[in-house]
Amino acid sequence: MLPPLRVLETCVYTKDLDAAFEFYSEVLALRLHSRAPGRHIFFHCGQGMLLIFNPDETEHAHPDEIPSHGSRGSEHVCWAVEREDLPRWRSQLEKHGVAIEHEQTWENGARSIYFRDPAGNSLEFATPRLWENDPD
Amino acid sequence: MLPPLRVLETCVYTKDLDAAFEFYSEVLALRLHSRAPGRHIFFHCGQGMLLIFNPDETEHAHPDEIPSHGSRGSEHVCWAVEREDLPRWRSQLEKHGVAIEHEQTWENGARSIYFRDPAGNSLEFATPRLWENDPD
Repeated sequence: MLPPLRVLETCVYTKDLDAAFEFYSEVLALRLHSRAPGRHIFFHCGQGMLLIFNPDETEHAHPDEIPSHGSRGSEHVCWAVEREDLPRWRSQLEKHGVAIEHEQTWENGARSIYFRDPAGNSLEFATPRLWENDPD
Repeated sequence: MLPPLRVLETCVYTKDLDAAFEFYSEVLALRLHSRAPGRHIFFHCGQGMLLIFNPDETEHAHPDEIPSHGSRGSEHVCWAVEREDLPRWRSQLEKHGVAIEHEQTWENGARSIYFRDPAGNSLEFATPRLWENDPD
């Protein structure tokens, strides 16, 4: 049995979609796909999507029959960024007043920078080969 | 400002890591990266990773200084699968007693199949071009 090709949709949840829109569009520079005020914001990222939902609107069955979901708490999403772009991302976070919570150098030489979105989700920029044995 | 390359880590949370291991390795056929009993299971998927955490173990600050995270409720993850593989995936779900909760044909012709993992997270198989204007 071959696995799926890749993750196509990664989700985070927040009640403050306006703050999320500003953060993910301006700080992370994600390309907007669509918004449904009060319910969701969808962004493109690489070959996939980041879907941001208000759990109050998605945790109950919906008339369009799309299955319910919705979680609360701090989630974690990591984005791949090129090593040579890390200084640019540090500047971008600083420019927008986003604190760097932690930096990490992994055993294989990969680098990570951790920060938070306005909802408190734990976000990470990591060099692309973090999960491989060879450094990048 | 260019966006990150792609999502590198997508997470779900569950207290029953053994059930998650069996499900994601046997039903979704994901390739195991590593396990820390009681805390996490990490799987490869395409160029990214699915990280499964027990939120009881990750929601508090950790001695290794990796920032805390952990959520509760039903999350959503969608995987891209080739259209010609949908029948194979339907058979795989049926073989493992996983109910198909909903099927959807989208405006652009893309297809989705929704089901649940043992923790109740809402999972989806979708044809790869779900978010593009052209059908696949």
